[in-house]
Amino acid sequence: MERFAEPTLQTYAGWEEYHSKPVTEKLDCFKTEGRLFDIIFAQQFDRQFLDYLCRLADCIRIMAKTKLGQNKLRHLLPHKRAMLYFVQPSTRTFLSFQNACHVLGLKVSEIRGSSTSSEVKGESPEDTIRTFASYVDLIISRHHEAGFAEKTAWVLNQTERPVPVVNGGSGPDQHPTQALLDIYTLEREFNNTGGLDGKKIAMVGDLKRGRTVRSLSYLMKNYKDVELYFVAPEIFGMRDDIKQFLARHEIPFHETDDFESVMPLVDAIYMTRIQNEYSEDPKSEAETYPEFYFKAEHLSKIHAHCAILHPIPRRHEIEVAVDKDPRAAYWRQERCGMWIRAALIAYLFKVEKEIFEEFS
Amino acid sequence: MERFAEPTLQTYAGWEEYHSKPVTEKLDCFKTEGRLFDIIFAQQFDRQFLDYLCRLADCIRIMAKTKLGQNKLRHLLPHKRAMLYFVQPSTRTFLSFQNACHVLGLKVSEIRGSSTSSEVKGESPEDTIRTFASYVDLIISRHHEAGFAEKTAWVLNQTERPVPVVNGGSGPDQHPTQALLDIYTLEREFNNTGGLDGKKIAMVGDLKRGRTVRSLSYLMKNYKDVELYFVAPEIFGMRDDIKQFLARHEIPFHETDDFESVMPLVDAIYMTRIQNEYSEDPKSEAETYPEFYFKAEHLSKIHAHCAILHPIPRRHEIEVAVDKDPRAAYWRQERCGMWIRAALIAYLFKVEKEIFEEFS
Amino acid sequence: MERFAEPTLQTYAGWEEYHSKPVTEKLDCFKTEGRLFDIIFAQQFDRQFLDYLCRLADCIRIMAKTKLGQNKLRHLLPHKRAMLYFVQPSTRTFLSFQNACHVLGLKVSEIRGSSTSSEVKGESPEDTIRTFASYVDLIISRHHEAGFAEKTAWVLNQTERPVPVVNGGSGPDQHPTQALLDIYTLEREFNNTGGLDGKKIAMVGDLKRGRTVRSLSYLMKNYKDVELYFVAPEIFGMRDDIKQFLARHEIPFHETDDFESVMPLVDAIYMTRIQNEYSEDPKSEAETYPEFYFKAEHLSKIHAHCAILHPIPRRHEIEVAVDKDPRAAYWRQERCGMWIRAALIAYLFKVEKEIFEEFS
Repeated sequence: MERFAEPTLQTYAGWEEYHSKPVTEKLDCFKTEGRLFDIIFAQQFDRQFLDYLCRLADCIRIMAKTKLGQNKLRHLLPHKRAMLYFVQPSTRTFLSFQNACHVLGLKVSEIRGSSTSSEVKGESPEDTIRTFASYVDLIISRHHEAGFAEKTAWVLNQTERPVPVVNGGSGPDQHPTQALLDIYTLEREFNNTGGLDGKKIAMVGDLKRGRTVRSLSYLMKNYKDVELYFVAPEIFGMRDDIKQFLARHEIPFHETDDFESVMPLVDAIYMTRIQNEYSEDPKSEAETYPEFYFKAEHLSKIHAHCAILHPIPRRHEIEVAVDKDPRAAYWRQERCGMWIRAALIAYLFKVEKEIFEEFS
Repeated sequence: MERFAEPTLQTYAGWEEYHSKPVTEKLDCFKTEGRLFDIIFAQQFDRQFLDYLCRLADCIRIMAKTKLGQNKLRHLLPHKRAMLYFVQPSTRTFLSFQNACHVLGLKVSEIRGSSTSSEVKGESPEDTIRTFASYVDLIISRHHEAGFAEKTAWVLNQTERPVPVVNGGSGPDQHPTQALLDIYTLEREFNNTGGLDGKKIAMVGDLKRGRTVRSLSYLMKNYKDVELYFVAPEIFGMRDDIKQFLARHEIPFHETDDFESVMPLVDAIYMTRIQNEYSEDPKSEAETYPEFYFKAEHLSKIHAHCAILHPIPRRHEIEVAVDKDPRAAYWRQERCGMWIRAALIAYLFKVEKEIFEEFS
Repeated sequence: MERFAEPTLQTYAGWEEYHSKPVTEKLDCFKTEGRLFDIIFAQQFDRQFLDYLCRLADCIRIMAKTKLGQNKLRHLLPHKRAMLYFVQPSTRTFLSFQNACHVLGLKVSEIRGSSTSSEVKGESPEDTIRTFASYVDLIISRHHEAGFAEKTAWVLNQTERPVPVVNGGSGPDQHPTQALLDIYTLEREFNNTGGLDGKKIAMVGDLKRGRTVRSLSYLMKNYKDVELYFVAPEIFGMRDDIKQFLARHEIPFHETDDFESVMPLVDAIYMTRIQNEYSEDPKSEAETYPEFYFKAEHLSKIHAHCAILHPIPRRHEIEVAVDKDPRAAYWRQERCGMWIRAALIAYLFKVEKEIFEEFS
């Protein structure tokens, strides 16, 4: 009776055996009754899911424009409790998720920071998570360790009372809801130009270490006739794994370090920060590359419909004077993050019907 | 008009005189109109109260299984505001209380960590608490100082606007809601075998410093024909004060360091952690005692109905493989903690009637 | 459509030009449609506004005495989300605002402490604030830098989606909601003696550095026939800027270091703490001045209706024995802070009508 759902569990001998499998083989472990139960990898999203979730986010966003709609939204899940477990700090992602919960009325508990008192007492991370799962209906976690959310979900799915786990970023590679928000922002910006299919997108900056541009590249396989431009200094170029993936899926891409030559060609420019906070000397200016900045003077070089995105926080990659141009989409992108996360949570608790009904 | 309730205050010359009295003489200070107003000591609980609260927790737990029930629960106290003042960190107890509040709809403010800005400015702890009491309707506190919650409640009860204080753990001795949750878990586990009366219970591990096993032993005086087995290495044996208390109340107990010999005899095993985080060298393995671990191989030695409890966090005292056995009650115990705390809060705000009515 | 309101923006070339103007010229930047949109300076409050807000706070306070009223209040703004951004810690102000939000049903996100993860990544404070504004409907900020809230509001007001900013204290000078709560407390205490007009008020202690007494002095220009007594050791006397302001507005004031001589003359005594936590040696007792303490023995020297205020936290300036005297208003003052802040938030979201209607 207390069981929320019954995830399809494949029988592995244990974590070691399970963990040795490639991601694509493991995806069913996080599904139940044909629906996603945990959100761990960007690879879980296919075109149908992405379209569905974008449509749901649109409905939520529009409902939230009126008091009546806001009140309908907050009555969807006020009986549910979420836990934000952010071992790795991230103000932005934290607030985005928290307010997405608030939009739908969920009550939120939060643990922020590097250790809990139980860890101090020698508790295993699995036991800590299982404790959290005892109290709430949803766990959203962010962790510096790759695979943390995956292991969490895997462990919980073998207990009597699994609750959904959403990966809010774990380690250097997976941050699936960032990928969702990027897709949703692009779809919204291309609303009047036929959507993402057939678009040319430039990704600029630190493509080597940028988690967002890597995930976004992977997701391009879900769209038709997309063409990518990787614009980066040589030492920060896109890694081979992504390039091989794109080649395998016949997605054309170009590499260059000449940003200005790409500007007139593309429908969207996805700017990123050189992530030198991971460098030994984070304040070093040696790693800044002004030729990969987008400046006010560049606004005349891009398409009238070209959308400028950035995962934020920015440093100097985009001049503040650009903010006022209607093509600057990065602040809308932040709000898109909240709406798509609200859509995701609504999906996990299966209340989409109540939302779509408002538009029937 | 603003007064929430009128606690019966005995007239002492001041804190010093009051404080010098034994606990049993002071209990009336925390009652009003025949009901508990503050929850400070496990000694405040008699059999009638324990049975009543367990029944209330059962109702809440069952209501929380349906959306309708969840919505009724969260409409009980949405007009009330609670404050979690956790000077001593405790992730688990914090989350348990916070979610208990969320279940009933209370809004929660939280202060976690060792100091507030006002303390820095030289404010007395009494003034700090009185400030908190200005803003909320309930204070739940956890503090490293013995007697902190008691003094807090005593001070507030002499003001124009006292609010109930719940002791979420203060110092080495009192943690009354942990005792409540242990009792509630045992009652639930013994649901089909006639309840706690007449049961044999083993307490295992660090009985000397374990606050939970000490409180639980005290509460046994409320039950009939209970028999206790203290299983510990000699240096961590149960202290004399408890043993004298049990003798005075004619509760039989046995002491041994032979865990396996006790296993087949008992209806419940209450495991505890060797609390060497208080040792000078907390990571020392010298203090671990594998002969006081409960392992998967022991499952065949215990009764078919024997319940295994643990206050969590655990280290190695219970092998993870034991978790899947239906007799492993420690994860249920965590949820019991949330339900019994919700029951306690419902009691303090006198909304039990609305809950019981659902079952009439 | 997503725009909450349209603040009247004067056209300045930029922040530098704007910032160089005197406060009185800038006030219109924080208004829209004839109403305050952001709450940045105490200078924004005129007599009409102060009276209006005090009346609103009274209504909220009275409604909050019944369950029915509490439920009406919490249904006013449950569809709105607030953000408490407290870079400078302040337990009391934080809790006061948070519970004011809870009274009205707002959902609250909080950032407490000196840095966010985005600042670590090199983000500008303006970008950080703009991010917060993406997620919520109201920002309440506290910052150690003078002008922080002002700049925040100025930046947001030039975006597509400004949200109101409330200054919860920025730097050494402005803390407008503290001024509001002091005015509201005085009006309440003078409820039976005709209100603030015509009253004599003593301000005692560290008048040089005390932000509260400085703001309160400024606001006196809104009241008729008020007379002030500045009681301080010579080195902590009221600064010349305030004295010139009072002279300009023909508000009589007296300066003395003889506290006892003033006691029988005044209708209210506003006590303050010597703020030696800003001294090099904060624990120094050298800066304590017992002749500026209010002691139980002084209760016989003041008027039967004289109100004793203190912004709290106190150290030794008011003897604890004074607390029980009905003229000790400082604990009521704390609750007044919550009510007037709730009134302010209700005003910013334009729900006063629903509140006043309860009394029609």
